[in-house]
Amino acid sequence: MATRVVGSLPVSDSYRASVARSAEVEAVLATTPEKLRMLTGDRPTGALHIGHYFASMKNRVKLQQAGVELWQLIADYQVITDREVIGDVQGNVRNLLIDNIAAGLDPQRATIFTHSAVPALNQLMLPFLSLVSVAELQRNPTVKDEAATAGIKAIGGLLLTYPVHQAADILFCKANVVPVGRDQLPHIEQTRVIARRFNERYGQTFPEPDALLSPATLILGTDGTKMSKSKGNVVELRMTADETAKKLKGAKTDSDRHITWDPDGRPEVANLLLLISLCEGVPPEQVAEEIGDGGGGMLKKRLTDALNTELAPLRARRAELEGDPAYIAEVLRRGNERANEVAEATLTEVRERMGMLYS
Amino acid sequence: MATRVVGSLPVSDSYRASVARSAEVEAVLATTPEKLRMLTGDRPTGALHIGHYFASMKNRVKLQQAGVELWQLIADYQVITDREVIGDVQGNVRNLLIDNIAAGLDPQRATIFTHSAVPALNQLMLPFLSLVSVAELQRNPTVKDEAATAGIKAIGGLLLTYPVHQAADILFCKANVVPVGRDQLPHIEQTRVIARRFNERYGQTFPEPDALLSPATLILGTDGTKMSKSKGNVVELRMTADETAKKLKGAKTDSDRHITWDPDGRPEVANLLLLISLCEGVPPEQVAEEIGDGGGGMLKKRLTDALNTELAPLRARRAELEGDPAYIAEVLRRGNERANEVAEATLTEVRERMGMLYS
Repeated sequence: MATRVVGSLPVSDSYRASVARSAEVEAVLATTPEKLRMLTGDRPTGALHIGHYFASMKNRVKLQQAGVELWQLIADYQVITDREVIGDVQGNVRNLLIDNIAAGLDPQRATIFTHSAVPALNQLMLPFLSLVSVAELQRNPTVKDEAATAGIKAIGGLLLTYPVHQAADILFCKANVVPVGRDQLPHIEQTRVIARRFNERYGQTFPEPDALLSPATLILGTDGTKMSKSKGNVVELRMTADETAKKLKGAKTDSDRHITWDPDGRPEVANLLLLISLCEGVPPEQVAEEIGDGGGGMLKKRLTDALNTELAPLRARRAELEGDPAYIAEVLRRGNERANEVAEATLTEVRERMGMLYS
Repeated sequence: MATRVVGSLPVSDSYRASVARSAEVEAVLATTPEKLRMLTGDRPTGALHIGHYFASMKNRVKLQQAGVELWQLIADYQVITDREVIGDVQGNVRNLLIDNIAAGLDPQRATIFTHSAVPALNQLMLPFLSLVSVAELQRNPTVKDEAATAGIKAIGGLLLTYPVHQAADILFCKANVVPVGRDQLPHIEQTRVIARRFNERYGQTFPEPDALLSPATLILGTDGTKMSKSKGNVVELRMTADETAKKLKGAKTDSDRHITWDPDGRPEVANLLLLISLCEGVPPEQVAEEIGDGGGGMLKKRLTDALNTELAPLRARRAELEGDPAYIAEVLRRGNERANEVAEATLTEVRERMGMLYS
């Protein structure tokens, strides 16, 4: 495999192939979006923030509106991959439901479901585990990175094998596309390998899903470092307009009053410009030019207005949904019911292919 | 942990503790057997032979007759842990059912079930995997041995994690005892660790099961080496009396006509004496003395008679059962139904304890 290094990530043949397939998916999206069945997911580990919103939620809503069939996973079993204290999972699941629906996801057309409620999906883990070697699992760079980020020395059994579980998430509903950032490509590749090996050994059963590569929108926290709830540097979706203004007022900039677009030299300023750009649909260079000598004060003021405008409909819908817990519970109940129907059908097919259907 | 080596297996504190607990189980068995819920299992990888019969089947029937509640697993997902070509699993499952019932297992009182038909059992794999480290899994001596025996260089994901799956087998029905040979003790220890960690983290849910240590009855093949279907050195349960006689006629002995009980010096002769002893309930030393100068011919003749007498009722019942496939299918259908009911109740309890029950 030919490999060269750009930044910290190698550009391999496999990466180039993924990019090419992602472009093909874009083409299908433009012409026949109804052919795409997409799996997306969130971990219910805490409140969603503007990082989630711009990096994935907004995009998935756009794709659904374009006509893509959406399967939205609330990955509750991924909460236990890298932590011992799991927190208020029920509350976090409810908030994920509310935030996604408030952001525009249509629960009539999407199947929203939790891992833990779909046994037939989880059972796929068993045959899939038999199709990968331990060495292969240990080479997964994303698992290594995640363990390092979580400060984990002794990798747990579920952390090592969660890419196989993710293959079950994607394949149980026969999704053919998964929107991911570049760092998640090894997982999609693992899923493709599992689908291929299963098909070779037991007969054609699963599609090999393609990654739909998201533009690398890395949004930093208000202090210019990686977003993290514990650092208090995030704007949560459930914050009020006033709380958002206050949080942005404390955002870090630099000593140069003249605002310019310089992502490498001035990362904090660039981050705020990028956010304005994402809200207003105007290039960040243009935003910088317009602010010019207005300085950090004007930059933050413009971002506050832009972000509060962008999030206003979501927040209004959020307040409504919070007042209707029965509806939220019903959305999840229906989603899990539908996921179970499909998972049971796939599992029956898998058991039949493997010669393990006895009745 | 204090460790000294006897033969190839270390005697550790943990082993001594297992032996002590096994003795306690024996005591319960003698007084209140109805307190014991036992999980036993077979892999549907081929025809059962007299090794299975004397090492486990006969014992499980005896325990059931004594009043122990039996859960009999047909471990179809263990077929894919160490092989790529899985063979006629359906046929092997049917034969396991027939052999066990023919040997005296009462399907009215035992729950006979297959892995692949019980999704809620398999789902327990997920939370349990989060409770063990990869290093811990890699240290399991039995997994290492099994990989070596199967000639496996690249250990697969399912082989590494199958002790965790086995914990799910044992804990889903809250079995409190598992009859095992000494080589399987690491698996029971792993199950105990998983039960303990789950209880500590999420509240008391599972019993810590005890091993019931089987007497080490190592029966060799007719050529004096380890039994293996591919070597043609096994007496299968489904053979006729004539086939059994023919197979035993070809059994290896040695050049000394005078028969003595000398397991170390004369392993092939000792193996045949042991089998006679198991069939007749007479000590092997006595059998040797009785045969004396009768030589290998008399030894084989006596074994043939003893074994055909021992297996006659099983074979008669086997023939009956083979003529009634609907009954066999119904036994498995009912067993899987019952296993699903219990697995679903346990899974609901587990999800509740973990705060992952949403409706």
